Amino acid sequence: MCELLGMNANVPTDICFSFAGLMRRGGQTGPHSDGWGITFYDGKGCRSFHDPRPSAESEIARFVRGYSIKSTNVICHIRRANRGRVALENTHPFIRELWGRYWTFAHNGQLKGVKNLTLSAYLPVGTTDSEHAFCWMLDRLRERWDRPPAHKSLCREIRRLAEELNGRGVFNLLLCDGQSLFCFCSTNLAWLTRRYPFGNATLLDEDLTVDFAQETTARDVVSMVATRPLTRDEDWTIMDKGSFVVFRDGSCL
Amino acid sequence: MCELLGMNANVPTDICFSFAGLMRRGGQTGPHSDGWGITFYDGKGCRSFHDPRPSAESEIARFVRGYSIKSTNVICHIRRANRGRVALENTHPFIRELWGRYWTFAHNGQLKGVKNLTLSAYLPVGTTDSEHAFCWMLDRLRERWDRPPAHKSLCREIRRLAEELNGRGVFNLLLCDGQSLFCFCSTNLAWLTRRYPFGNATLLDEDLTVDFAQETTARDVVSMVATRPLTRDEDWTIMDKGSFVVFRDGSCL
Repeated sequence: MCELLGMNANVPTDICFSFAGLMRRGGQTGPHSDGWGITFYDGKGCRSFHDPRPSAESEIARFVRGYSIKSTNVICHIRRANRGRVALENTHPFIRELWGRYWTFAHNGQLKGVKNLTLSAYLPVGTTDSEHAFCWMLDRLRERWDRPPAHKSLCREIRRLAEELNGRGVFNLLLCDGQSLFCFCSTNLAWLTRRYPFGNATLLDEDLTVDFAQETTARDVVSMVATRPLTRDEDWTIMDKGSFVVFRDGSCL
Repeated sequence: MCELLGMNANVPTDICFSFAGLMRRGGQTGPHSDGWGITFYDGKGCRSFHDPRPSAESEIARFVRGYSIKSTNVICHIRRANRGRVALENTHPFIRELWGRYWTFAHNGQLKGVKNLTLSAYLPVGTTDSEHAFCWMLDRLRERWDRPPAHKSLCREIRRLAEELNGRGVFNLLLCDGQSLFCFCSTNLAWLTRRYPFGNATLLDEDLTVDFAQETTARDVVSMVATRPLTRDEDWTIMDKGSFVVFRDGSCL
């Protein structure tokens, strides 16, 4: 199983603390040793780091961990390959442009026969089921709307597409357009929102505690989503199977 | 003016030496202080580093310079903003998928009225003329062919599109699909091919010499393209205005 991590915040926020915990799961405290990737949005732009090597040994991961990149939207993925060989082009998150925005996608699970779904405007570069599913989702959105629709309609349609894909197997999804973070729970996904008054948090995977009160202002609102809770002393919501949530400006809508 | 750097090689090759010289031009030995970006292909995948800050001060640039990433195709760009504000989404190279391949694009120059060109399948995320021109080129290629055409036809069409854009101003272009490096010289572009027997090279912008004989095997063929020659003791070909070259497997076709 792969590990997913997402963040959505109302102000640019440093994800290093959560990233530190997740990276340990990549070949050290967890079995996810077939590469990793992370995308940070900065305005409409985004920067991505991908490495087909285990995150726990990755020089790029060490750099990202030490370099404070503040972002309002982040998607991160640690891969345990099941379909598609270990290669850079098979490393999540995948990125495509739709309606003049960069969309990023990370998935854990398997999807039976997903490559039978016909694609048109978007084609996969690698060989994973996940990238095929992403291209199919964007194709459907593009076919339906020439430009971004009302947010509620968009959320409804993404949920419907996620449910359709989930019918083929396991489809835990993080999808982001740089504004909203769309999350579908097939089997495992948990989230929490940090807001004033901030407290302490201790990583489950590493002996590291952070006092968010020192790192934030009273107005900051930050939501985190992950395959499994990352901290031991915070109140994570374990998502129900088949449920869907959207975060915007740091809050669950 | 921006600075361009491209590499095409028949075996994965380390570009650090040339990158070191170029990065000094970003706000130190040159006036190109509005960000920089670099894309390295690895198989069909690619990794990109972008930073809207001057390359000479960039932590990411220092990391890239110190981290030996071997690649067969590289495109690098240092930006001096003329259209479009300094922002991550306006930082070259731009990347899009066409025919199941990642295409990367870097440009220096200005293009009058390029935003009047109608776009369909690809839309810019940022506000530069360059990204608009890139989207327009890919639109034309996609409209003409459903799948990759014969290489000669592709080269001819890319040249034709580059000439058309060049009619609107200055269009020095590096374009790569992960296999070939397509280069159009509007005003400034120079290239050289390094092959056996390899010699020494000394950077113009930094007191640094490398003996390529120590770094290579007799079969390696590596071509470099840059806005201006990067080394003092090698035989660069200064391209004629309006000329077009394509590199593949390290050699000029």
